[in-house]
Parts: sequence; C-alpha cells; structure tokens
Amino acid sequence: MPVNVPSTRKPEDSRIVVPGRVLDSLTRNRGRYLRELAEFLEIPSVGADRHHTADMRRAAEWFLARVERSGFSGKVFETQGHPIVYAERCPDKAAPTLLVYGHYDVQPPGPLHAWKTLPFTPVVKDGAIYARGATDDKGPVLTYLNAMDSIIAAEGTLPLNVKLLVEGEEEMGSPNIERFAREHRRMLKADTLAMSDTTRYSNSVPAIHYGYRGLVNMQIEVTGPAFGVHSGVFGGLVRNPAMVLARILCHLKDDDGRVTIPGFYDHVRGVEQWERKEMASLPVDDGALRQYLGVDTLAPEKGFTLPESRYFRPTLDVTGIQGGHEGEGMKTIIPSRAIAKISMRLVPDQKAEVIGPLAADYVRSLALPGVGVAITHWYGNDPLVVPTDTPAMAVAKRAIEYGFGRRPVLARTGGTVGAVTALHKELGIENILMMGWGSPEDGAHAPNEHFEIYDFDRGMKTVAALLYGLATIKSDSTGLKQQR
Amino acid sequence: MPVNVPSTRKPEDSRIVVPGRVLDSLTRNRGRYLRELAEFLEIPSVGADRHHTADMRRAAEWFLARVERSGFSGKVFETQGHPIVYAERCPDKAAPTLLVYGHYDVQPPGPLHAWKTLPFTPVVKDGAIYARGATDDKGPVLTYLNAMDSIIAAEGTLPLNVKLLVEGEEEMGSPNIERFAREHRRMLKADTLAMSDTTRYSNSVPAIHYGYRGLVNMQIEVTGPAFGVHSGVFGGLVRNPAMVLARILCHLKDDDGRVTIPGFYDHVRGVEQWERKEMASLPVDDGALRQYLGVDTLAPEKGFTLPESRYFRPTLDVTGIQGGHEGEGMKTIIPSRAIAKISMRLVPDQKAEVIGPLAADYVRSLALPGVGVAITHWYGNDPLVVPTDTPAMAVAKRAIEYGFGRRPVLARTGGTVGAVTALHKELGIENILMMGWGSPEDGAHAPNEHFEIYDFDRGMKTVAALLYGLATIKSDSTGLKQQR
Repeated sequence: MPVNVPSTRKPEDSRIVVPGRVLDSLTRNRGRYLRELAEFLEIPSVGADRHHTADMRRAAEWFLARVERSGFSGKVFETQGHPIVYAERCPDKAAPTLLVYGHYDVQPPGPLHAWKTLPFTPVVKDGAIYARGATDDKGPVLTYLNAMDSIIAAEGTLPLNVKLLVEGEEEMGSPNIERFAREHRRMLKADTLAMSDTTRYSNSVPAIHYGYRGLVNMQIEVTGPAFGVHSGVFGGLVRNPAMVLARILCHLKDDDGRVTIPGFYDHVRGVEQWERKEMASLPVDDGALRQYLGVDTLAPEKGFTLPESRYFRPTLDVTGIQGGHEGEGMKTIIPSRAIAKISMRLVPDQKAEVIGPLAADYVRSLALPGVGVAITHWYGNDPLVVPTDTPAMAVAKRAIEYGFGRRPVLARTGGTVGAVTALHKELGIENILMMGWGSPEDGAHAPNEHFEIYDFDRGMKTVAALLYGLATIKSDSTGLKQQR
Repeated sequence: MPVNVPSTRKPEDSRIVVPGRVLDSLTRNRGRYLRELAEFLEIPSVGADRHHTADMRRAAEWFLARVERSGFSGKVFETQGHPIVYAERCPDKAAPTLLVYGHYDVQPPGPLHAWKTLPFTPVVKDGAIYARGATDDKGPVLTYLNAMDSIIAAEGTLPLNVKLLVEGEEEMGSPNIERFAREHRRMLKADTLAMSDTTRYSNSVPAIHYGYRGLVNMQIEVTGPAFGVHSGVFGGLVRNPAMVLARILCHLKDDDGRVTIPGFYDHVRGVEQWERKEMASLPVDDGALRQYLGVDTLAPEKGFTLPESRYFRPTLDVTGIQGGHEGEGMKTIIPSRAIAKISMRLVPDQKAEVIGPLAADYVRSLALPGVGVAITHWYGNDPLVVPTDTPAMAVAKRAIEYGFGRRPVLARTGGTVGAVTALHKELGIENILMMGWGSPEDGAHAPNEHFEIYDFDRGMKTVAALLYGLATIKSDSTGLKQQR
C-alpha cells in the first residue's frame, strides 16, 4: 500500500514521507545553515533597548535578504515600533496555506558577568551554539527557512503556500502585531499558523502547546523627596519611597503564592478532566528542576500541583527593582524614588485589559501620605487555548514524531506569545501549531542562552515533514470544532 | 575694664577678643584659602568606592602637606582601611589642648544627572562653592586650619595646644578610628574635642549639638534561582527573591513609622523636661521643610512631634534596593537575587551591638522556603549625648555668637558621628563641641552639595574666637559634672 495517499485513511494512520532528495539537501547545506545562524545571532537585536534601534533594522533586513535568496518575495514593513518582515512563496492557489510566525528581536543579555562567552559572539561548544537569541527565537525561525530552502533546492517548489511573518517586538509584548494583522488580513490569510517560540515539554519529551498564559507587565514608580536626602538628618521625617514600594509589592501576593489584587481570580477557568489526565501522564522530575534552577525548594501556589501552578494558574512576579544607592558600600540616604517592574501571568478567561487596571488601581491604593505612586508603563496580552482535535494538529504530532523520534505530549506553557493571540483574533485562524524545538533548559531570557545543534537538525527535519503533511489537508476541510 | 581677663568673671559674662592682626590675616589670605579648598575638593575621595582608593591617599597627603606648611608636624597613619592624618602644634605644655576632628572622605556623588555641575569640579556660584564634600566635611575642616594659619602668621604661635585628627572613613561609619584612638591615647590626649561635621539648626539659627543618633547599617541579600529565569516558564514555581526582599522590608516598619523589630525600643530614653522646653523654643517651619524636600506631607513617627521624631526617636530606612532587570523596558525574568541596604538610627540608650544582631535575626526570620537570606555586611555606631553645663560649652557659645552674630541653640542631630563616639569612649574626653558652620540645606549626601562662602568666612572667625576662648580655661578646671 502506497504511504503517500493520506486521503484514503484516517489522519492518525498516515505516515509522513519527506523525499530523500530533500533530506540530502538538508545534510549538504547544514554547514551553511549554521554559518547563517551565527550571522543572524551576531546582530544584537535587543528590541527593548533604544540604543539597539539600528541593529533591529539590520536584523530585519538580514532576514529579508536571506528569504529572498530562497526564492521568497517580501518586504520590511514599518510599524510604530520595530519593523516587521513579511515574505511569501505561494506556488498554488488551490493548495493550503501555512503562515509561519517568528521574531528576530531578543531579550536584553542581562548580567554580562554571568555569561561564559559574549552574548553576541556566537560560539559552538559541546554541540550547541551559544548566543542571546539562539533558542529564542532566531534558531527556530531559521529551521523553517532552511527546510523550505532545501525543499526548493531539491524539488524546485514547495508542496503548499507558505507565508512568513517575522516581527521585532515579541519580547516587548508584540504591541504592533495586532494592528499589522488587521491592516493586512488578506495578505496574511492562511489555514494554519505554525511557530516554534515555545520549548519541548522537557529535555526528553517533545510537546505541542495548545495554550499559554497571558501577560500584564507594569512599571511602578514611587517618588519621595526631590533628591536623595540624608537618612540621619531627615530619617523619621520623610516617607521613604523604597519602603513604600516594598509595602506595595508585599501586598500584591501572599506567602502562599496567591495574588491579593481584589478581583484577580474572578474569571480563572478550572482545569478540565482531560487536562488533569494528560498532566498526570507527564513526567515531573522535581529533583532535576530544583537542580536546574539551583533552589532547594520549589514554591507552587498552595493547593495546586507543580504543573497546575505553572501552567493553569495566574501569578505575579517582580522582574526588577531599583532605588537609592546602587554602588558599593553604604550611602546613608533616603532615596528620591524607587521603581519596580512587575509581570503578571494570566490564564483563560482573564483578560489583560481587565487585570491591568485592576492591578494599577490596587497598587495606587497602597500608597502612603508623603509619596507619589504612578504606573509609568503597562501593556498586556490575553492568554489563549486552541482546539486540539483537528487534522492539522494530527499532522503536527506525526511531523514531530518523524523529526524527534518520539510522540509529543499536549501541554500548556506558562509563557506568553502575544503575537499569536493577536493573529488568532485578527485573522481568525484556529489551527495554531506551537511546537518548540528547544529544551526548557536552553536558557531563554537567561545568561548563556544556547540552542543544541541536534535540535536545529531535528527542527529542520520536522518542518519538512510538517509541510508535506499539511499539504495533504484540503484547505476547506479543516473540520474545526468551534471550541474556545 | 579689660575684656581679655575672663578668669576674673563668670564665663557667661566673658567677651572674646580675636586680635585685629589675626582678622586682617584672615582677610588677606581669603583668596588663597578658597583656592586651596577647591584643590581639596577636586580630589574624588569617595571612601566607599574601591575605585577611589588612590584618591583617598592623595587626599590624605594633600591635607598633611597643607598643615605642614602652617607649621604643624604630622604623619599619615595606615589603618586597615583608609589612612588617618594626624598633626599637632603644641607650643606650651601647661596650656590646654584642643583636639580637632574632621574627615577628608566624601559620600559617593550619587546620580550624576541630578548634578548641575560636576561633583569633583568645584564651581563658585551665587556665593557658594559647589562640589561633593564642600560642606561635608572638607570646607569646615579647612576653616580650622585656616584660622590657625592666620593666627600663626599674625602672632607667630597658637594660644593653646592643637591636635588635628582627620580621617578617611567617616562616611563608612569610622570602623578604624576606635582602634587608632586606643593605640594612640597619649598622642591624642586633649581637654576638649571640637568638630564641625554637623550643621546649623536651620538656615538662620546656629547650633551646638550636644547629642546625635547612632547608626546600624546593614546589607540584606536574598538569593533565589541560580540565574534569572523566565517568569512565564517558571512563574508560580520558583520563589521570587525580590518579592521576599519586599516582604522583609515591609515587615521592618509599620505605616505609623514604628520599627517592628522585636526589642528595638527596649532601651530608648525619654525626652527630658529641659529638652522639651528647648525644642519648643526652636523655630520649626514645616512649610519651608516640605518645600526644601519637595514633598507635600512630612511623616514623623505617629505620636511624636517633628523634632522629637527627627532627633529623639530611632528609625529605619532603606537606603538602596536592587534586583533583576535594571535597564530600559521590561525583561520577564524572576531575578536570581535582590539586595537592600538599610540604615537604622539609634538614640540613647540603644547600643549598635545589641540592635544589629536583633535586626539581623528578625530579617532572617522573615525568609520564606525556596530563598536564602543573608546579612552580607553590617556595622554600627552608638548614639551619644554630652554634658552641656561646662566652661568649654560656654566658650563655644560665645565663639559662635562672635562669628555668626547670633547665640546658638542647643540641639540634638539626627545624623551620626561614629568617630566622636569612639574618641569619647577611648580618650575619655567629655568636653565635646559639635558646631556646624553649614546649613542643613547645603545638600550633604545629596546632589549639588555646596558650602556658602559666607559660612566659610564665619566659620574661620568662629574658630579663631574658639581658640582664644578655650585658651583661657585651665586644663584642670573643666569642672565637668559627670552627667551622661
């Protein structure tokens, strides 16, 4: 029985075949693909830092030039922030269309002393490439491009229509992608959205993520005296803004890990039966997790298991705090101001536009006479859960099994992909495939971020399988249940 | 009746006479004295910053060279920290001896953007000299030297024995002065100790400070994950050290300004009747204070007046806080560690060696599972109150009235002079004259620190009067009441 006639069977029985010539091309071009990844990683495209504005454009243009060399046609689009790269290669109007999402911006490198190599000088070491952005998200983005490059080189064309959308503000919450999608609905129209800005479930278990937490980030500024004043001469007379900031932060979450903002939990959805079952089947290695994190005790929210607390419960964290004397030694001043950056993670059906103002009002209510409290920035993204019972999802499972040699688990992630929320909302795409190639231990957002070259290879193979698999699904037969 | 025979009258009736030749010399040398002050201020002698270690030595050597030019003989003494300069000119063994204390170290300049001129490029503007250390304490230190320089130039000798002790660690709590005093008791022996490392009571009211608050400074470090981890992936799983730090700080003081460390108030002495009366007689201009500080409400400890809270009550302040992402924008990490520097001000009869461990124990007790809490540094100085009913104090009052044209008030200060505590303890000197020439609004420890040139002049005149006045008190007739 020929294996490439999936229309005669149920999708679950289908086998995926990637032509041998494509696999050969992937092998032949591997060295170049790695060199190009290093080139991409050398561009310090830190979106949150205005000193890197020129590097952001450089990264966008580098990527466009690269996809054009593979026969895509595209453009760098301006936004109110950093530019968006869009490119497409659509050989057959009747074929299904895949939209690939990724981002070229990277997190700030953070404490340089904690890096063993320079964050923007990629180094291959022990089978991995080390650099800021290696696993989040430049490496995974290039796996898509490279698989297509090899398919085109081997076969002359792609088996379906492909659109690439690579933005520069993911790490800032993708503030401009919703508007971009709204203004380019026709251009971006697709049957399926794929992205790899997530990770495997664990080092050994691949995953498809069918949901993620939302986000509200906020900066709290407490202002006191007009300048830092002598803590002896004025101590006991002037309200200390750093102490009021501590008071505010201390009142946002209790010792059990429960957020204390009034109304915060009002719309939190419970865990469904099948989710509890799937979670129970997943390996949880507390010991390995503790060792990786370097802590002796994990601290899930009281009354919830580790995975529940991590994926199904909202939370709140201080991501940065600053005020007063920062240098060596002691300086006996009452600071003029103190700042905290906080990040809340939301779950269905919390909405960022509800939680943001709730949190801001509560923060302001915690001020004391003699200081000013202001929310100086805030932005948010809603959480998302997508349907799991679709032909596209079945193809994705088989593609991962093909590339990684192991069937993926269905999981939720604790992180946030604001752009996917926006694309889901504006383009109405329900087939959303979030398949991370990297490991949760690659150090995304942390010092010494890296991407295993083995995962780079497996990712490219998986993308090739995904393209051939999705090509077999009729554009009008995705058979979606309307489950949100 | 000749006015220079004070032994025939009660001290209160005495008038001080500074020879005209001395006043002429002060006037003649004023330009040079100012240039020398600028030279001294150009040396960035920031004791708390190890990058300035060489500058500390440079400042010590500059000062020694300067006093030697005025005919003192001295030496730069090594300590375990920054060097101490000692110099003396003792013309007559039978005459009383004055020990002058000061410091050449300065506070870190702090946020440079808040300075209108560069902190180590002295600028004379609107009748004041602007630079870090101008009022605290290089300007006041030189008033002593300059008055003596002019007396020697005019009269060929000093009217009493003078010893100068100028250290480099006052802003760090003077950790080495106690040992130095213990090891050089004979060398430092004196009848009276004078210093001007305090300020006037207010812009218009000069003061003699008969007491000050003690100090316990402490650095609290809370450690969590081994590196900054993704707040989405690990949020709800890992205890956040910045949030635990906030929890700790929030529990150290209540909203009424009362320190909540158990046992903190056990040995706090009440306000005496005469002190309450003296305080009531002092001008308190809330409006001016609020305007100077740039706050709309002052926050004294509940149940106490402003002066009581400021001078007679202990307190606790966060002087610096730091953790996680410090750059622009948001970085969604759970920080690896967070640090706070706190400063407690103590009053009689609290002891630093009691309060320090009490605070440290309490801080550690506020940790939560999953983080480590450590006190990484701490040091302290006891508070002090000295007798006010002495001939030396009477002379000091008259000298200030001579120099400033107004009788000083007796007050306590909220600041701390650890060195005086140490000298009081080791040398047994009870005649301690703390007479600040500068204004509390000179910006000590703050940006744009300055010293009025008018105060420089008035200070030099007052020192000259003080020397002639103290010369009239017999070394063995200080008539101290043993009041502590």
